[in-house]
Amino acid sequence: MEIEWVGLDADDTLWHSEGIFQDAQVWFCEVLEPYCDPDLNLVGRLDDVERRNIGLLGYGVKAFTLSMVEAAVEITEGRVPSRVLAALVERGKAMLDHPVDLLDGVADVVAELAGLYRLVVITKGDLVHQERKLDRSGLVRHMDAVEIVNEKDPATYRRVLGKYTIDPAAFVMVGNAMRSDVLPVLAIGGRAVHIPYALTWGHEHAVADCDVPTLGSMRELPGWLAAHG
Amino acid sequence: MEIEWVGLDADDTLWHSEGIFQDAQVWFCEVLEPYCDPDLNLVGRLDDVERRNIGLLGYGVKAFTLSMVEAAVEITEGRVPSRVLAALVERGKAMLDHPVDLLDGVADVVAELAGLYRLVVITKGDLVHQERKLDRSGLVRHMDAVEIVNEKDPATYRRVLGKYTIDPAAFVMVGNAMRSDVLPVLAIGGRAVHIPYALTWGHEHAVADCDVPTLGSMRELPGWLAAHG
Repeated sequence: MEIEWVGLDADDTLWHSEGIFQDAQVWFCEVLEPYCDPDLNLVGRLDDVERRNIGLLGYGVKAFTLSMVEAAVEITEGRVPSRVLAALVERGKAMLDHPVDLLDGVADVVAELAGLYRLVVITKGDLVHQERKLDRSGLVRHMDAVEIVNEKDPATYRRVLGKYTIDPAAFVMVGNAMRSDVLPVLAIGGRAVHIPYALTWGHEHAVADCDVPTLGSMRELPGWLAAHG
Repeated sequence: MEIEWVGLDADDTLWHSEGIFQDAQVWFCEVLEPYCDPDLNLVGRLDDVERRNIGLLGYGVKAFTLSMVEAAVEITEGRVPSRVLAALVERGKAMLDHPVDLLDGVADVVAELAGLYRLVVITKGDLVHQERKLDRSGLVRHMDAVEIVNEKDPATYRRVLGKYTIDPAAFVMVGNAMRSDVLPVLAIGGRAVHIPYALTWGHEHAVADCDVPTLGSMRELPGWLAAHG
């Protein structure tokens, strides 16, 4: 069936995101070091706290910031001064206000695709933050729909496609995360294109037991769609 | 025009919410008191921090929790121990995991309305938290749609109604907040029913310069709809 709708992931597909979290992790370690046993794996400990909080806090910068505060007190056994914890909150607020840095080719490709297909952004993360980034990206005028979701599993994709009466066979999802953007879409009978990003959060790693079309950058997407749509 | 779609606010319309925030504020003051000048208005200071953060952090428990941490350090000029700040984060996590306590009559009324109208929940707040509350509420099976939004202004209502091709003249919104549930819906040509809640957050107060139908509880809603739909 011909492709009518193209789904686009946002973080690390349309704009850079993971680097902002990794920079904050490096900074977190530098700030906490004076209060810690030098043998501690600070990044590992922060990651542990983040993972155990995902169910309750969900994804995004506010969840990450609360996990930083919790981890800082836990790792330092309460020795971290409260001023440092306030600085963690400030860092989180700065992350929420970060300028949007589009990936190479995205502005051109999205404008081109908008004339050929219906476009829907499907992204996880913090509601207020994702809406702000979409506003700042300049891409919203090309989008037919935006869905900010809590989890990208088959049930979520089925619900989103149902909302716009999209036939899965006429849908292709494009994103950088196998676990969130590719596998659940294949599971509901849609197609998916993987555009790997240089940095990927460990939580998003997954291995496909099938051949997934993989592109080097968004610039290759219009050609792929023309050939396979 | 006949009413086809009923929009339902969630917090303090379907289930109790504001009391959980007010309890947390009282607890915040008790916990902070030992580190503060006794003349300080702690609730007022926390409220100031919350309001100045709304634009950046949005609504909901995670935003409130980050504001508690920020306010605690600011109000105590850094004297609050970091263990207390970790306790604030734990309180926020407990709020996110709070059991859902439906308002009187809601379960019956929603089940009754589901057979007569299409129902859409339109609520602000934290994505992961609102989805969890909806799951736990047992109400989701009666809903045709759920929209968790960042701000309830006329543009948002226009977008949501557009998504489901709802004619504003065939739509009535039901909720406890004049500012979020009533005025913006009237502004786009829809109807609205106000069901005041005993507690209302100051931020949500607004005065209508028009007559708005006001009910004493959700139990009166089916009758109102039957008479005015």
